[in-house]
Amino acid sequence: MFSSLTIKEFLTQLGSSRPTPGGGGAAALAGAQAAALVTMVARLTAGKKAFAAIEERIQEVIADGDHRQQELATFIDHDAKAFQAVMAAYALPRATPEQKQSRNLTLQAALKSATETPLSIARHCVAIVRLAGDMAEVGNPHIITDAGTAALLAEAALAGAILQAQINLKAIKDSQYVEQTQVEITFLVMAAREGRERALAAVEKKLS
Amino acid sequence: MFSSLTIKEFLTQLGSSRPTPGGGGAAALAGAQAAALVTMVARLTAGKKAFAAIEERIQEVIADGDHRQQELATFIDHDAKAFQAVMAAYALPRATPEQKQSRNLTLQAALKSATETPLSIARHCVAIVRLAGDMAEVGNPHIITDAGTAALLAEAALAGAILQAQINLKAIKDSQYVEQTQVEITFLVMAAREGRERALAAVEKKLS
Repeated sequence: MFSSLTIKEFLTQLGSSRPTPGGGGAAALAGAQAAALVTMVARLTAGKKAFAAIEERIQEVIADGDHRQQELATFIDHDAKAFQAVMAAYALPRATPEQKQSRNLTLQAALKSATETPLSIARHCVAIVRLAGDMAEVGNPHIITDAGTAALLAEAALAGAILQAQINLKAIKDSQYVEQTQVEITFLVMAAREGRERALAAVEKKLS
Repeated sequence: MFSSLTIKEFLTQLGSSRPTPGGGGAAALAGAQAAALVTMVARLTAGKKAFAAIEERIQEVIADGDHRQQELATFIDHDAKAFQAVMAAYALPRATPEQKQSRNLTLQAALKSATETPLSIARHCVAIVRLAGDMAEVGNPHIITDAGTAALLAEAALAGAILQAQINLKAIKDSQYVEQTQVEITFLVMAAREGRERALAAVEKKLS
């Protein structure tokens, strides 16, 4: 498990000439950090008199944020495995027509899996950007910049994950799958931008 | 040292109700990840015949990226310490005019230090966005999306760090310092946007 490495060890592996962990894993960790920042803001809002009216919502944010943080930490590994499966499929023999066909089927399945993994990272990140927007708007204003940083990191993590999905999509032959996925990507990018703009508008109002 | 924690432990501390590590530390780690991704792309470009003409530049990118990655990892700690110093200054007694004056001097110095720390993170991140742009333009095209993700994460880390700097700037009385710092912030934000746009333009050209 990459999340059992120390930060120093993880950074060394990320920077090495080994292709995993790579951009997808870095995006998953940045998304997990954004989720953690959201729950920090929620925890420093919870139980305070001034925010009693929204206590129930705050507790939901903590539970949802904790869950997504843990999920995203496991996606550092999922992403590496999905990438390795694509590399393994490319390395399969293709001397005979049967081998070619078999390699092709394995490769196409691996490419879809290596698209779905960063897409899942991106879906979590959209949810986190929205939670960050909520916390920036109604949470403890003393730590509003942490909610803003969460929104920025989650949006960048989403955009990075989507780059990884798109390079795999380029090699996928199932045009219906490619089209449907591009539609979802457009939605995810728009939703993240909206959430980040909402979070930063609340932060800037406080800073000005 | 936060970088000696496992990723899981760091995320738990980041998400806890303790205010440190917070947004500045998360920004430092995201910037360190971006630096690591840049060096991965550079290492997977180095020593290859097709890129022999730029080998010297690639080696510079590796050396610079490694250095900035290690520096940014230490900034997770610097940022926490700078924040704690501000909190400690706010907690100083202010019963007498002498106490008030002493508290004020300590607080203003702590606020400047807690502005300089995220600014240093942001300066490293601008350099990393530019390295990512260079790698996206001339590096190994098979891993160009990793250079794109590096640019995205470094720009978000910069923007997050700047939010932390700005909330401290708000309480700083030295108007010349505030003005000069705002000028630098404007420059850093512009330079990061340019670098990220350059990196993503190269990635999109490859993806389209």
